[in-house]
Amino acid sequence: MATLATDQRVYNFSAGPAVLPVSVLEQVRDEMLCLPGAGCSLLEMSHRDKRFLEILADAQAGIRELLGVSDDYEVLFLQGGARLQFSMIAANLLRGQDKAAEYMLTGSWSKKAIEEARKEGNVNVTWDGKANQYSQLPTAADYQIPADAPYLYYCSNETIQGVQFQSEPTCPGSVPLICDSSSDFLSRPLDIAKYGMLYACAQKNAGPAGVTVVIMRKDLLAKGSDDLPGYLLYRNHAENDSEWNTPPTFAIYVLGLVTQWLKKQGGLQAIEKQNHEKSQLLYDVIDAFPDFYQGHAKVDCRSKMNVTFKLPSDELQAAFLAEAASQQLQSLKGHRSVGGIRASLYNAMPVAGAAKLADLMRAFAEKNA
Amino acid sequence: MATLATDQRVYNFSAGPAVLPVSVLEQVRDEMLCLPGAGCSLLEMSHRDKRFLEILADAQAGIRELLGVSDDYEVLFLQGGARLQFSMIAANLLRGQDKAAEYMLTGSWSKKAIEEARKEGNVNVTWDGKANQYSQLPTAADYQIPADAPYLYYCSNETIQGVQFQSEPTCPGSVPLICDSSSDFLSRPLDIAKYGMLYACAQKNAGPAGVTVVIMRKDLLAKGSDDLPGYLLYRNHAENDSEWNTPPTFAIYVLGLVTQWLKKQGGLQAIEKQNHEKSQLLYDVIDAFPDFYQGHAKVDCRSKMNVTFKLPSDELQAAFLAEAASQQLQSLKGHRSVGGIRASLYNAMPVAGAAKLADLMRAFAEKNA
Repeated sequence: MATLATDQRVYNFSAGPAVLPVSVLEQVRDEMLCLPGAGCSLLEMSHRDKRFLEILADAQAGIRELLGVSDDYEVLFLQGGARLQFSMIAANLLRGQDKAAEYMLTGSWSKKAIEEARKEGNVNVTWDGKANQYSQLPTAADYQIPADAPYLYYCSNETIQGVQFQSEPTCPGSVPLICDSSSDFLSRPLDIAKYGMLYACAQKNAGPAGVTVVIMRKDLLAKGSDDLPGYLLYRNHAENDSEWNTPPTFAIYVLGLVTQWLKKQGGLQAIEKQNHEKSQLLYDVIDAFPDFYQGHAKVDCRSKMNVTFKLPSDELQAAFLAEAASQQLQSLKGHRSVGGIRASLYNAMPVAGAAKLADLMRAFAEKNA
Repeated sequence: MATLATDQRVYNFSAGPAVLPVSVLEQVRDEMLCLPGAGCSLLEMSHRDKRFLEILADAQAGIRELLGVSDDYEVLFLQGGARLQFSMIAANLLRGQDKAAEYMLTGSWSKKAIEEARKEGNVNVTWDGKANQYSQLPTAADYQIPADAPYLYYCSNETIQGVQFQSEPTCPGSVPLICDSSSDFLSRPLDIAKYGMLYACAQKNAGPAGVTVVIMRKDLLAKGSDDLPGYLLYRNHAENDSEWNTPPTFAIYVLGLVTQWLKKQGGLQAIEKQNHEKSQLLYDVIDAFPDFYQGHAKVDCRSKMNVTFKLPSDELQAAFLAEAASQQLQSLKGHRSVGGIRASLYNAMPVAGAAKLADLMRAFAEKNA
């Protein structure tokens, strides 16, 4: 079969796994039969091969450079997605403690994190967005964190609801701040020194499904008990530089290529600017037609990654999705728990894709309002 | 960059991740920018997309057809490799039990499985191959399994030592037989009805690193406690058809293509015949030069997957590896814990590759003996 042409590709607004840079996919394609100089595919290469160890080190270095991660932190590549992190965090840092860990309940993903943490110890829900259907996020005045809490956990971007923290929650210096950054990882600069740990499954901004990036302050690695299932103990992975067992080599390779692509785009400040521009194109239409488009997130909590909104009726929503599909705008249906439309605008979504969707939204509202 | 030609590829004897069929790699390459009809790469596609759900179902069906897996069993795709299975098996089936689980200690991988199981409950080492440096396996006369044991665990092929069970251990019908088949999965026909559970990380015969196939009898799914970390509870994955969380979509896709390739080769009986032929080419040379090549495994325990042997000196071993590399025979160095040479001959290694290595072994022995 001939290689399919790039012009068969659509604009893909999937919430994850999600759009990747075309140049990365092209390199993966070109190296599939034979990684240059290796004599075999990356898929066929031992994880102990020095060429793979270089790929792994390059992927780590790419993340360190983009986010400014100091040597006080480990960068790990794990499996099991955010779901396993929900358990690992609590198993390592909460199990056996008297004090309650603090959790911000801001949407579907932090809710699941809390369910897993409660199996391991006491949890205090610092703040709960339920009264507003998880359409807004707390301000510093809404909560207080005890200075002896084992940690404060939050999800920086709730993919399903489309709400995003614009900056880190206020947290006493003695309390490790732990962040599920799965759906806004590498989408903007961060001050990693504020975090005890930040993690992200890769399949939004950073790569394919199958690898989870964990950035963990080294002092926290000492906390887990040796009685834990070995895979769940962070320090096993840290002490073996993510090779305690065979890591997901292909996903790490693609993630490394994505970090190189990001550097070529000008790094995280440049990509944040572009992400702002893309999301604003859609929010401007929502604001221009407030009786037609109902945005889910409160204005000051809007996500730059996942724009969620509803149309006046299910029929109009179905017609909108059909019209979008006919214009090669794909995977816009909202999560079944929230309904409506969700446009995910991760790093690799071109501005032209967001602009084309904005044009459709405007035309559709003018015709049907 | 132009696509690299197939003739740059070497014969790759890596123990895992390992050689894959060229036709599978070519299809992955050709579909990398755009899965036919999808408008995007498989890497960019939601795991809930109906096209991916078909790919997942096809991969399950491929395994069911090749191994004759009945509806009494689930076929799951998990993450975390064999290491996480070591913990999950004991956490689901041993935790909270008085009786000891039975474990065959036959090499490096079963040893690690025992270490993890001991964190969860009582373990009885049914048989220990240590006295013979794990060069042989037990016969039915060497052990007895209590009829009320929670399960009997064994590793069908010890990748590092190169010993392989020629058939299943003897086990009372009341005791679930549990098998780590990571390095001989899909290399020969099996009677799955004999097993309570059989699992394999894919990166030997079945696909890339990052996915673990679990074939589990449905009655065993009821046993784990809801208190377990959610990812570790098998029934979460079974009840959600491996989509309890985002599965490693790319690894599942490649694994599905490998099952299709296996069917085209004539299925598991045909591939077993070829695997016998390939390994016999090497064992024949070892037997022809018994003073030069020292095979690690006793003759009746020899692995058809990993042929392990030593040369008379470290110098000769280094010279042999250098000569092999010059002939495009790659990744033959034995595991650091055993030393010597290890030639892994998984399904996708062509007979011509094994024949070329056998020719080198013969010539090298004749020259240096």
